[in-house]
Amino acid sequence: MELEFIHWLCREFAPDSSVIGDDAAVLDWSQHQDCVVATDLLADGVHFQLEEVGAELAGRKGLAVNLSDMASMAAQPIAAVVSLLLPRTGAAEIARSAMLGMRPLAQQFQVLIAGGDTNVWDGRFVINVTILGTTAHRAPWTRRGMQPGDWLLATGEFGGSRQGRHLSFTPRVQEAIELASRFDIHAAIDVSDGLSLDASRLASASGCGVILDRQTIPISAAAQATLPTDPLSASRKTPLEHALYDGEDFELLMALDERVAREVLAHPIPGLRLSVIGRASKEPGLWLTDEEGIPRPMTPRGYEHGANP
Amino acid sequence: MELEFIHWLCREFAPDSSVIGDDAAVLDWSQHQDCVVATDLLADGVHFQLEEVGAELAGRKGLAVNLSDMASMAAQPIAAVVSLLLPRTGAAEIARSAMLGMRPLAQQFQVLIAGGDTNVWDGRFVINVTILGTTAHRAPWTRRGMQPGDWLLATGEFGGSRQGRHLSFTPRVQEAIELASRFDIHAAIDVSDGLSLDASRLASASGCGVILDRQTIPISAAAQATLPTDPLSASRKTPLEHALYDGEDFELLMALDERVAREVLAHPIPGLRLSVIGRASKEPGLWLTDEEGIPRPMTPRGYEHGANP
Repeated sequence: MELEFIHWLCREFAPDSSVIGDDAAVLDWSQHQDCVVATDLLADGVHFQLEEVGAELAGRKGLAVNLSDMASMAAQPIAAVVSLLLPRTGAAEIARSAMLGMRPLAQQFQVLIAGGDTNVWDGRFVINVTILGTTAHRAPWTRRGMQPGDWLLATGEFGGSRQGRHLSFTPRVQEAIELASRFDIHAAIDVSDGLSLDASRLASASGCGVILDRQTIPISAAAQATLPTDPLSASRKTPLEHALYDGEDFELLMALDERVAREVLAHPIPGLRLSVIGRASKEPGLWLTDEEGIPRPMTPRGYEHGANP
Repeated sequence: MELEFIHWLCREFAPDSSVIGDDAAVLDWSQHQDCVVATDLLADGVHFQLEEVGAELAGRKGLAVNLSDMASMAAQPIAAVVSLLLPRTGAAEIARSAMLGMRPLAQQFQVLIAGGDTNVWDGRFVINVTILGTTAHRAPWTRRGMQPGDWLLATGEFGGSRQGRHLSFTPRVQEAIELASRFDIHAAIDVSDGLSLDASRLASASGCGVILDRQTIPISAAAQATLPTDPLSASRKTPLEHALYDGEDFELLMALDERVAREVLAHPIPGLRLSVIGRASKEPGLWLTDEEGIPRPMTPRGYEHGANP
């Protein structure tokens, strides 16, 4: 990393620490039992449009999606390292803006920006964040553990995130930690690639199936506002289809005992919308209830960033 | 990450573990006091030429440069997470090849590939590796701590790495751990951007200067083979200039007491070339001795990947 940028980073991000500027950052981990680590790469033209949204929101999203991974494990984030691959034109400005875009989230969740790597090239802007956290002596949530009969609980609302919320969402870190400390959650996932796809991943990792309830899936205002009958609209999807397939909601899906789910709903977290959107089935697969409440097989689909390998 | 690729990764890389495939990897850190973390991003066209070298060597380099960061802290590497940004054409093949290219190094240094992220786009291949390690109750080496009068000890040889060795070097992880366990090393750095530049960074971080000895800097065969007088050669640098400025040697510079340096040299590590290439000065700055051994100020230069921000 270029010296001037490193000095700027130290001043702005870690004035009281000396973690930035060496070949690696040294974090005191003596109080932690585990190290929960996630990494996410975002690219201009795939996960954001730099020209439209600017580097600050791109940087914010880079940290936010990693925080959402911590939330899906009910882990407390501790530190992050950031790699930037910068277009030659405006490199220094983009680098600073991206880091400044991360700062409010870093402060809110007390994540130390511990270091990173910067490079310049002839291609488009790429940002990679790796986040480290811990679950503080409690086992982290995983995708494995959903039991047939479990209720599927979702935070927030779904659909239409790419119209703006994917750049401004608050990761469910605090909600996850609070729920994990009070209730026995069998399994969890964050919805990054689409409700139907991530629900089926949760089921598949747990060796069971999942039935989604079309009546109770909370649909966001952004998804509601799409008009499938409008011939000028690019979208041919219904609001429910947006909720099922759009992705980038960064809400949590949690599987838990019916009894525990009722307890959770009886003791709500202020400001947090929680909905029972389905239940786990013994038979593997993904279903969506029809108008009469009868489960019909459905194909999991979602927003996969590019085709995947 | 696409399911088939994840399953392949699990089979090939972590058959006995369940760290891959969730939103984050959970690593048992209960036996470790610290978490040493480094991240490095490599891009096609900047750090390697995919068409020339192939994805295996690119992947190998992605892990190797991170291992070199661990070596520069005398840290024991433990786990790594890998992000791949893949060109649309041949994405699956490139992803598998890059991971297979990492495997021999991962096995040699017992680094668990704990997870990652893959995406496809219209740009060139990008790979980001984040590595986690620990120093096992011993303080890690840093760049701060070189004292005026210290001798500067270097592993290996310098110059000409971009002609091939940058793709095949063995990171100095074991050597660093062994030296750290036996001797008091004041400060260290790995030479990624050029001997002169990284030596001056070490000095600058320590608040002193450094005098390099032109007579003792070990020059690699690749740098020796360059003929500055050959009118057809693209290079106009002398072998010594290659050694000072080329970069990507991934050797270690270590600052230590003269007395301790003599001890180190008296108890060599089999197969490891060690050279005293200079000494620390009270006055900040960078010098190179001339033919008569008199220090002359020099400008630190190196291989910075693109212009940095």
